[in-house]
Amino acid sequence: MTEKKKPQHAPITGYPVVDGEITLGGIKLSRLANRVGSTPFFAYDRRLMTARVEEMRKYLPKQVQLHYAMKANPMPAVVHHMASLVDGLDVASSGEMAVALDTGTSPELISFAGPAKTDQELSQAVAAGVVLNMESFGEMRRAAAFGEQQGIRPKAAIRVNPDFELKSSGMKMGGGPKQFGVDAEQVPDMLKEFAALDLDFQGFHIFSGSQNLRVDSILETQEKTLDLAIRLAGDAPCEPPTVNIGGGYGIPYFPGEEPLDLKAAGAGLGELLPAFEEKLPNAEVVIELGRFFVGEAGIYVSKIVDRKVSRGHTFLMTDGGLHHHLAASGNFGQVIRKNYPVEIGNRMAAGEKEEASVVGCLCTPLDLLGNKMELPVAEIGDYVVLFQSGAYGLTASPTAFLGHEAPKEILV
Amino acid sequence: MTEKKKPQHAPITGYPVVDGEITLGGIKLSRLANRVGSTPFFAYDRRLMTARVEEMRKYLPKQVQLHYAMKANPMPAVVHHMASLVDGLDVASSGEMAVALDTGTSPELISFAGPAKTDQELSQAVAAGVVLNMESFGEMRRAAAFGEQQGIRPKAAIRVNPDFELKSSGMKMGGGPKQFGVDAEQVPDMLKEFAALDLDFQGFHIFSGSQNLRVDSILETQEKTLDLAIRLAGDAPCEPPTVNIGGGYGIPYFPGEEPLDLKAAGAGLGELLPAFEEKLPNAEVVIELGRFFVGEAGIYVSKIVDRKVSRGHTFLMTDGGLHHHLAASGNFGQVIRKNYPVEIGNRMAAGEKEEASVVGCLCTPLDLLGNKMELPVAEIGDYVVLFQSGAYGLTASPTAFLGHEAPKEILV
Repeated sequence: MTEKKKPQHAPITGYPVVDGEITLGGIKLSRLANRVGSTPFFAYDRRLMTARVEEMRKYLPKQVQLHYAMKANPMPAVVHHMASLVDGLDVASSGEMAVALDTGTSPELISFAGPAKTDQELSQAVAAGVVLNMESFGEMRRAAAFGEQQGIRPKAAIRVNPDFELKSSGMKMGGGPKQFGVDAEQVPDMLKEFAALDLDFQGFHIFSGSQNLRVDSILETQEKTLDLAIRLAGDAPCEPPTVNIGGGYGIPYFPGEEPLDLKAAGAGLGELLPAFEEKLPNAEVVIELGRFFVGEAGIYVSKIVDRKVSRGHTFLMTDGGLHHHLAASGNFGQVIRKNYPVEIGNRMAAGEKEEASVVGCLCTPLDLLGNKMELPVAEIGDYVVLFQSGAYGLTASPTAFLGHEAPKEILV
Repeated sequence: MTEKKKPQHAPITGYPVVDGEITLGGIKLSRLANRVGSTPFFAYDRRLMTARVEEMRKYLPKQVQLHYAMKANPMPAVVHHMASLVDGLDVASSGEMAVALDTGTSPELISFAGPAKTDQELSQAVAAGVVLNMESFGEMRRAAAFGEQQGIRPKAAIRVNPDFELKSSGMKMGGGPKQFGVDAEQVPDMLKEFAALDLDFQGFHIFSGSQNLRVDSILETQEKTLDLAIRLAGDAPCEPPTVNIGGGYGIPYFPGEEPLDLKAAGAGLGELLPAFEEKLPNAEVVIELGRFFVGEAGIYVSKIVDRKVSRGHTFLMTDGGLHHHLAASGNFGQVIRKNYPVEIGNRMAAGEKEEASVVGCLCTPLDLLGNKMELPVAEIGDYVVLFQSGAYGLTASPTAFLGHEAPKEILV
């Protein structure tokens, strides 16, 4: 007799249970909530971020530079901590650029990507001296003009829309017609024009996609990306100082997903590098990641304010919701809604379980944080914890929706 | 020879074209943009809101009360204007309640719905004297306790989860197991307990769904809703002073959708009321709407900052994006992404057209505002206008995403 097992969430290991409560940074959940003073809140663990970077340093080839894409979590304290660990930062707006510069990171280690930069943003970026990832011919010309105007030689890389896709990725950012970067086949012409302008060539940014859990497809893409960089470098004004090959490393969110095999990913990249280094010995290879650094280092905590049984179905009514955590509700790019890992954070000891749905406080059926999950029997006042919430949580959510207060954020 | 015509957007009539530009409130778009001082922005037309309310007064039975659900657009100036036109307001949080009270609307004409009200919210609502739509037994008990504590008799209605669904609605809010309200079959027990508490009975709130364009299904639901209210009233401590039958009236967003036939909807409701009034002669029937009042009265305007052709596909790169208008990107509850009506607002005179996609400034492929649309050939500096943007626009969007500045809002 065989029984088909329902797919499970990958185990969550970063939050040890003490006295039946999960802990974050060694602090019990209830104490953490008292320290924050109100629910809901996001809590991030700096030690988990540090451990992740250490793991990357251990498994990835030593010469690979690590950049943090702060769009994943732009909380200033998080960016500051990450800046102390990695080799550079990537920003997506002048607002993010200001936070990145405030950490004391050298401007030349900050890259600015964004498919539709305004004149204002280009002017600020030129003045700051950060590396502009140029997304079009027009942007290159405007950047050069601001440089001339300000008497500064802008640092500029070319963002390339590759002629291949990252297979099995949660989000495709390259291949086919795209709003991002310059089509690979147009780059030689762009480089010709580049050489005639007063711009400081910084290399290429080739980003194919994100949230990928499959080593084989990541390596296949990295190989193509490195090859493409070698090809494009032939037309460059000098050897590219930097080749940013993007990231793509994903984290497991949904039942049945397995963590990325980082050891294999690092070993595979190590095998690809010698051929690249033979052709471009002075080009630094950069891996740029957001979610992979911080996604697993954060939780979203809300409190149960009501319990309701409607037609046989149990609802745990929380003071949180999609206005704080849109992605967990399944409304941020997902085609099919699936559950994030959820626990009742103060009932981790063995006990009676029930099937229940976790919903938020908004007047919309979209506000579903956990659908028909097997959870400990919970009561009013208990804490609902959503894991994998360190990236694309608060800032990727419509916080003003329905006029509730914004949640607090804490870095422990 | 027959040619299958592609479905078209319903005509947009509220923004007359003058000198090739759309106007809002009689002001040309370019002048409006100069007045606001920066792009992107949302602009709302008070005259269109007034006209919509007048149209409702004309076609709906005279005795029907109109309430504005301010969640659709909580901009204080909009709420203030709407409050001067309608008979009451509905709020979904204490934040919204504060804005509603600031308009000078009497508390007894403000109702507060929300499936997971916190103690703080209940306490504030009791103190304010607004009508609490109670969503559970527990909420009723807590409201009564706060009333006792504050020496105030809370005004309370019961939100009912009906035993039927609103067919063909964009969003289902009732029927089956739901987090909203109290199952119809539990209401008699709740009314028994209600009578024993020191609460001022205000009636029922029965809301089945929203964004419906079909008169027949709206009327079928209204008939069932009125019948349900009559049934439930038998167990009430007194004749319900108010029966809020929700709204459900939709607006056309996508190609092929036709505007609701308001005349038919009003006439149909008129035929349903006599039977209801025979049983409950003193119960006021309330229709509560958000989107239908304000959705068509607003536009979202962004500026083209770049134009790019990638592998044969034209992209209009704007300074706007899903961080301001998530719904238009197709990422707010939609199963299949469809285009909102879009125009190049300063190129409305006849001219050459092309197929182009309108994208925002964010580094994500989700940031698509118009996919492969037939648009006038547009240039950098032109204004992209998204219509049907007066509801669930700014506040339903992740404004902090990627650190760009929030757009301005203007009521003309």
